[in-house]
Amino acid sequence: MRVGIGILGGGTVGGTLARKLIEDTAVIAAKSGITFDLVGVAVRDASKTRPFASGFATTDPESLIDDERVQVVVEVMGGIEPARALVLRALRAGKAVVTANKELIAAHGPELFAAAEEAAVSILFEAAVGGGIPVIRPLSESLAGEPLTSILGIVNGTTNFILSAMAEEARAYDDVLAEAQALGYAEADPTADVGGGDAAAKAAILAGLGFGVWVGSDRVHTEGIHGIDVNDLAAARDLGYTVKLLGIADSTEHGVCVRVHPTLVPLDHPLSAIRGANNAVFVEGPAVGELLFSGPGAGGDPTATAVLGDVIVASRELLAGTPVAPRIRFGDGQVVDFATVMTQWFVRLEVIDAPGVLARIASCFGDHDVSIMSLRQEGRGDDATLLIVTHDALEENHRRAMGALEELDVVRQVAATFRVISSEH
Amino acid sequence: MRVGIGILGGGTVGGTLARKLIEDTAVIAAKSGITFDLVGVAVRDASKTRPFASGFATTDPESLIDDERVQVVVEVMGGIEPARALVLRALRAGKAVVTANKELIAAHGPELFAAAEEAAVSILFEAAVGGGIPVIRPLSESLAGEPLTSILGIVNGTTNFILSAMAEEARAYDDVLAEAQALGYAEADPTADVGGGDAAAKAAILAGLGFGVWVGSDRVHTEGIHGIDVNDLAAARDLGYTVKLLGIADSTEHGVCVRVHPTLVPLDHPLSAIRGANNAVFVEGPAVGELLFSGPGAGGDPTATAVLGDVIVASRELLAGTPVAPRIRFGDGQVVDFATVMTQWFVRLEVIDAPGVLARIASCFGDHDVSIMSLRQEGRGDDATLLIVTHDALEENHRRAMGALEELDVVRQVAATFRVISSEH
Repeated sequence: MRVGIGILGGGTVGGTLARKLIEDTAVIAAKSGITFDLVGVAVRDASKTRPFASGFATTDPESLIDDERVQVVVEVMGGIEPARALVLRALRAGKAVVTANKELIAAHGPELFAAAEEAAVSILFEAAVGGGIPVIRPLSESLAGEPLTSILGIVNGTTNFILSAMAEEARAYDDVLAEAQALGYAEADPTADVGGGDAAAKAAILAGLGFGVWVGSDRVHTEGIHGIDVNDLAAARDLGYTVKLLGIADSTEHGVCVRVHPTLVPLDHPLSAIRGANNAVFVEGPAVGELLFSGPGAGGDPTATAVLGDVIVASRELLAGTPVAPRIRFGDGQVVDFATVMTQWFVRLEVIDAPGVLARIASCFGDHDVSIMSLRQEGRGDDATLLIVTHDALEENHRRAMGALEELDVVRQVAATFRVISSEH
Repeated sequence: MRVGIGILGGGTVGGTLARKLIEDTAVIAAKSGITFDLVGVAVRDASKTRPFASGFATTDPESLIDDERVQVVVEVMGGIEPARALVLRALRAGKAVVTANKELIAAHGPELFAAAEEAAVSILFEAAVGGGIPVIRPLSESLAGEPLTSILGIVNGTTNFILSAMAEEARAYDDVLAEAQALGYAEADPTADVGGGDAAAKAAILAGLGFGVWVGSDRVHTEGIHGIDVNDLAAARDLGYTVKLLGIADSTEHGVCVRVHPTLVPLDHPLSAIRGANNAVFVEGPAVGELLFSGPGAGGDPTATAVLGDVIVASRELLAGTPVAPRIRFGDGQVVDFATVMTQWFVRLEVIDAPGVLARIASCFGDHDVSIMSLRQEGRGDDATLLIVTHDALEENHRRAMGALEELDVVRQVAATFRVISSEH
């Protein structure tokens, strides 16, 4: 059996996939029963194409999609447009689509899924979350019968690399970011990674598939790690925590809540051990218990492997003469107002060290219904620092408490405040 | 869309699945788009059926399979016969089959896969390995394009529960086994678990799917944990290891090797932290890197969740009018002669403590091309114990060395010997 492939995008993932399809044809055929014919790779600038794919390069993606030899279209160009228009064109032409584009799926998933269903073809996106870690297919197929309650994880390798290096080597944010850029872990413009947008798109996709309620990245509360202070990582460690950028999605009777923010994770929590550019996702449900998926979260090779797996699945469906009908359905679901979410907090305060200061700070927390779990004072004299961990508190109460603290004359600065998860999560 | 289900087996998994299909119909329909009709549950003794499923009980599995309302047959009775005959009957009648029966798949996989392909229906078995942890589908679909090199893991919850409790509470094997039986973690006849047979079947299935070479449980080198000595667990801990029953499958240029045996795992290895009845599987390939899947490895609820996921996938295929064609293909592959496998060893020797003893023991190792990495002596006087860890050695050389040690007059006993894995694995 032979299947023709067209690749949109000649970057790291597209180039790696093209090389695999050209060089490993026999190995892939032995394991999958399918021989792939690479028809073409649509690139922006044909002169910059990687050598092995140069004979396949075209700057006309529409013609590649329309080429009758192309049965599966792989979209690895990234970004919203023209990716969205090209994917829709492919689906409407009856071609199966495989994409690694988390931004596109998170922003326009329902439109694309509807177009695929109408054309009776598949759109698959295992590579959009977790690089080579299979997590999309388990969520949408193996766990399709389970009413999941929680999805929690490290879904951005760049920020985990930065936070790991800062914590382990006591280095400043800007310094480590520059290294990550030099190593290729971070883009020249790192906004999507360090601002949390990339993680938010992935968390939105995971929540949509896991809970059956489409959230979309615009309804994910998102905070990044931009400019995070190495002193906070050290203070967190003193209290028994590491700082991770987590995607957290919960489904309760009140609705679905999805958020991305830097989080204090207890040192004995398995996510605390996920270092460097690795990813890890916890999935929890009443029947299945707590599952963990982890591995390298990014990079051309793992991502191309996930894309290739999807290409094989899509090809089997095409060869069977019909796609596997509705894969992705979403019910009506409530998205919880973020202000009503309860969470523990870590607060680093710079205060004047004088009699009565602690009492005034404690009552400021208490006045806003935020209860202190632990308090530790570091330093003496004018420069005292308070490290405080609260019990679960409402987002809006915490915000008001922080505002009130800033007004106190004994408080020099609310130097930092992060949410905290507990070991049981 | 409605799909009729017949369940073969009314035990823990069958009963849990029946309850889910009856009680959670609306929840499952909302997420999957499919309404399931439970047609019947075939049981051995209708008087012992769980209350909620009593109206569905039958003692005639053939008639249930042949019932035209049944479109998907779920086999959760276990054992080889009559499960094999019933599954073949269902496939030949054009019904999709979902099974949790690792013993059946490992022993008769190719026959069943061929029957499914001939009848153009699916046989799915996500629940056969790792309970509710999705690992079968990732291996056979998401990683279908990757030439995997290694699969390594804890795939039997009962033995992991026993080894964890023995190590953590310094209790004897028989004592912990009795507790595991009382808690329902171990069967009245625990042979399949503690003898390694259950793990061997699972390792054979994982290797077959991961490497594309069918091994079958009869070609898995299998050693269990029956009667393991709590002193060895303590000695291992002193040297920086935990003892785990591992399934280990490697694919090299020489062929495929699959084995199950108690293994010393370094304390800083992630598998060392997998406690109680949990399971964890590492999968490694050149492009995808090292992936980890972990979670509760057994129990009615997780296993029923995995079965239900497969039932949903099988139903989608049926509703599409045709199954997704050849899922499972196996090439010709060499199975490596186990005697030629290289591994590190831990050896506990009871020796006479006299001058020259160490030299004689060391040269006994050396004479058989087994090189000592570390040696530690415990105790003094007549009762000295040597704890030895070797470098990588051939299975057959190690066996000869142990035989020669037994012959030495200064060796009272080769008290125990276990294979060791390193941290990099």
